[in-house]
Amino acid sequence: MPSNSSPEPGFARDAFVLPRAPGGGDAVYLAGNSLGAQPRAARRAVLVAVDDQWGAVGVAGWEECGWWATPQRLGDRVGALVGAAPGQVVVGDSTSVQLFGALIAAARLRPGRSVLLSDAGHFPTDRYLASSVARLTGLTLATGTPDALAPDGDTAVVAVPAVDFRTGERWDLAAITARAHTAGAVVVADLSHAVGAMPVALDDLVIDLAVGCTYKYLNGGPGAPAFAYVAARHHDVLDPPLTGWTGHADPFGMTEDWTPAPGVGRLRVGTPPMLSMLALDGALDVFAGVDLAAVRAASLALGDAFLAALPEGVEVVTPREPARRGGHVAVRVSDAEGLRAALAHRGVVVDARPPDLLRFGFAAPYVTLDDARTAARELAALLG
Amino acid sequence: MPSNSSPEPGFARDAFVLPRAPGGGDAVYLAGNSLGAQPRAARRAVLVAVDDQWGAVGVAGWEECGWWATPQRLGDRVGALVGAAPGQVVVGDSTSVQLFGALIAAARLRPGRSVLLSDAGHFPTDRYLASSVARLTGLTLATGTPDALAPDGDTAVVAVPAVDFRTGERWDLAAITARAHTAGAVVVADLSHAVGAMPVALDDLVIDLAVGCTYKYLNGGPGAPAFAYVAARHHDVLDPPLTGWTGHADPFGMTEDWTPAPGVGRLRVGTPPMLSMLALDGALDVFAGVDLAAVRAASLALGDAFLAALPEGVEVVTPREPARRGGHVAVRVSDAEGLRAALAHRGVVVDARPPDLLRFGFAAPYVTLDDARTAARELAALLG
Repeated sequence: MPSNSSPEPGFARDAFVLPRAPGGGDAVYLAGNSLGAQPRAARRAVLVAVDDQWGAVGVAGWEECGWWATPQRLGDRVGALVGAAPGQVVVGDSTSVQLFGALIAAARLRPGRSVLLSDAGHFPTDRYLASSVARLTGLTLATGTPDALAPDGDTAVVAVPAVDFRTGERWDLAAITARAHTAGAVVVADLSHAVGAMPVALDDLVIDLAVGCTYKYLNGGPGAPAFAYVAARHHDVLDPPLTGWTGHADPFGMTEDWTPAPGVGRLRVGTPPMLSMLALDGALDVFAGVDLAAVRAASLALGDAFLAALPEGVEVVTPREPARRGGHVAVRVSDAEGLRAALAHRGVVVDARPPDLLRFGFAAPYVTLDDARTAARELAALLG
Repeated sequence: MPSNSSPEPGFARDAFVLPRAPGGGDAVYLAGNSLGAQPRAARRAVLVAVDDQWGAVGVAGWEECGWWATPQRLGDRVGALVGAAPGQVVVGDSTSVQLFGALIAAARLRPGRSVLLSDAGHFPTDRYLASSVARLTGLTLATGTPDALAPDGDTAVVAVPAVDFRTGERWDLAAITARAHTAGAVVVADLSHAVGAMPVALDDLVIDLAVGCTYKYLNGGPGAPAFAYVAARHHDVLDPPLTGWTGHADPFGMTEDWTPAPGVGRLRVGTPPMLSMLALDGALDVFAGVDLAAVRAASLALGDAFLAALPEGVEVVTPREPARRGGHVAVRVSDAEGLRAALAHRGVVVDARPPDLLRFGFAAPYVTLDDARTAARELAALLG
C-alpha cells in the first residue's frame, strides 16, 4: 500500500472482497455509489458480534461489549470523516428516518418561519419526506436547483444534497449555507453521495444539521445504518420528534416524560440493529489513517481516466470540471437497463437510473485505473 | 425434539447457542424477554448474507438474493406467528420508529377526533412517542391502565401493549379492542412482549394496527428490526408519515410525488439493515412447524415451576393466574441491580428494571424446568 498521503486508486483493494464476475474472478465493481464492496474487516466484525458477543455474552453485551455506546462511538468515527468534532454525530436508523427527524428538528429551530426550501432534484426519499414534514409542521414546501435556491426571511430550512444522486454534480455547500444563514435559515445537508468519497468539512462550513448513508462509499453493508450530525451550537435547544427511549437522558430510569439526552444523543431513537452497526464499525477501518483529500484525488483520477477513454459522442451528464463532480460519473444512454445488464454480463457492475442514466461509481479504495478504462472500453463496445 | 404438538420446555435447546456462565458451561439464560439467545440458524443466515450475498454478489443482491422483497417476506413469516394473514405485516426499522408511524397513521384514520388514549404503564418509548405524536397531530394524550381505558366518541386511537413490560401482566386485548371499536376508535397494539411467547390472533381480534419487537422471544439478535401490522381493511386509505422511497408504489421510478405502494408495503421507509434482517430470517426457523399454543403452555409451565420453587415471602408482582401472565415473571426486591449482578455471577442471567423489579423470562424453546428451578433456588439463596 502506498503512503497514506497519496494513495493510488485501488490502494486498499486487498482489504476488500469484490463481487465475482460471471466468467470468474473479480468483477469491475463500479457500483460503490449504490452499495460498497465488502471490507474484510466488516466480515470479521460481524463474526465477533455474532460469536463472541451475542452468542457468548447475551444481553450483557449492551454493557460488556459496548453495544449501548455504539451509536455515538460510531458517530464519532463517521464524524471524523465529515469534519465534525466529536460529540456531534450519531449512527442508527435509515437515512430516511434520520432525515425526517432532522427536518422537523430543524424546522423547530425557526418557529416563526413558514417555508421549507428543498432541492427539486433531491433523492426521492428526501423530497417525499420533505413533503411529509411540511404537512406535519404546517410549512410550505418550495423546491429549486440547489444553487438557485433563494432563501429569505420566511425560510425556516434549506435542505440540499452535497452531490446530486443522478448526475453526480457536486454542489457548493459553502455558498448555499452562506445564503441560507444570511437569510436566517438553517441548513440540512444530505451527505449520502459524499461521505467517504471526498473531504466534507461540516464544522468549518457551519452547516446546521446533516444526514448521510453508510452503505455507499463507507462500505457498511446492505442497508447499513445512517448517520445524523447536529452542530454543537444547536444541542441545548434541539427538539426532535422521534422521542424514543434510547435518546432519553436516563434511558433506564423509564420516567414519565421524555427528557432529552445531552448533546447529539437525543437523536437516538429505538434499539439499533447491532449486527449491521458492527459491520459498519469494521468497514470504517478502511479509512483509518487515510487522508480523504487523497482519496478524493484518486477518485477524480479514476473519473478522468474513464472520461478520457469514453468514445466521442457519449453524452456525459456529470460536469467534467473536477471540483463540480462527486464520486460517480453518469452518462445518458437510450437503454440504460439493457446496457447495465449487458455490462454486468461482461463483468462490469454499474447501476442504471431511470429513465436513461448509467452511473459509474469510482470508490478509490478498491477501484483501479484499469477498472475505469475497462468500463469505458466495454461501454464503447456495447454502444458499437 | 418432542412432537410439535406438545413441546416440553427447552424443546429446541440444541438449536441455540446459550451465553456462557462465569464458571464455564451454559448460563441459565432467563433474559429472553430482553434479548433472546442465539439460534444457530441465525448465525448461518448471517454468514450466507455476508459471504454468498454481499461479498460475492454485491449490489445485485437486492434482486438476485431477494433482499428487496425481504421486509414483506419476513413480515409474512412474523405474521404467521401473530395470527395475521399474508400481506399485512412488514419488517424493518426499530419498534420506536414503527410505533411513531403507526400512531400517526392511526390518528389519520379518525380525522374528526381529538384524543389519543394510551396505557399509563406502557413501555417508555411508547409513552414518549405517543406524546410526540399528540403534539404533531394536535391530539390530546390521555393515559390510564389498559383495562380501565374508557374510549368515547372523542377517542381517535387506543394504544396498548399485549403484556406489561414491567409486571408481565397480560392484558385482555379482545375486551380492550371491543370497547375501542364500540366507541369508533382504532387500536394500536404493541406486541413486543407477546410475539413468540404465546399465540396472538390479530386478525381474529380485529385489531387495527400493531407493532412489535423481534429480538426478545423471536431471538432475532441485538436490535433486530421490528414489525408493523396493518389490517387489510385499512390498506387503501392508510396514510403514513414516514414516506420513504422504499414504500413508494414505483420505488425506482423516482417520480415527483410519493405514491404509496399497495397494501402494507407503504409502511416501508428507508433501506432496511439487511444483515440484521437476515439474522432474524434464520432465527425464525426455530418456530417453523411449532404450535405457539404449545410454546405458551411450556412457558407457563416454566413460570409455574419457578413460582412453586420461590420461597414464601417473595413479592411476585406478576399475576399468578396463568391467563393473566405474559412470558416473564417479575418479583419485587430491595436491591434489584445488586441481585441481578449476584445472580449473573452464579450463572443465572435475568434483568433488573428500576427501581425494584427483577424479571425472569421463560422462553420455552431453550429454557428448561431445571433452569427455572435453579433460578428460584439461587434467588432464594441470595435473599437469605
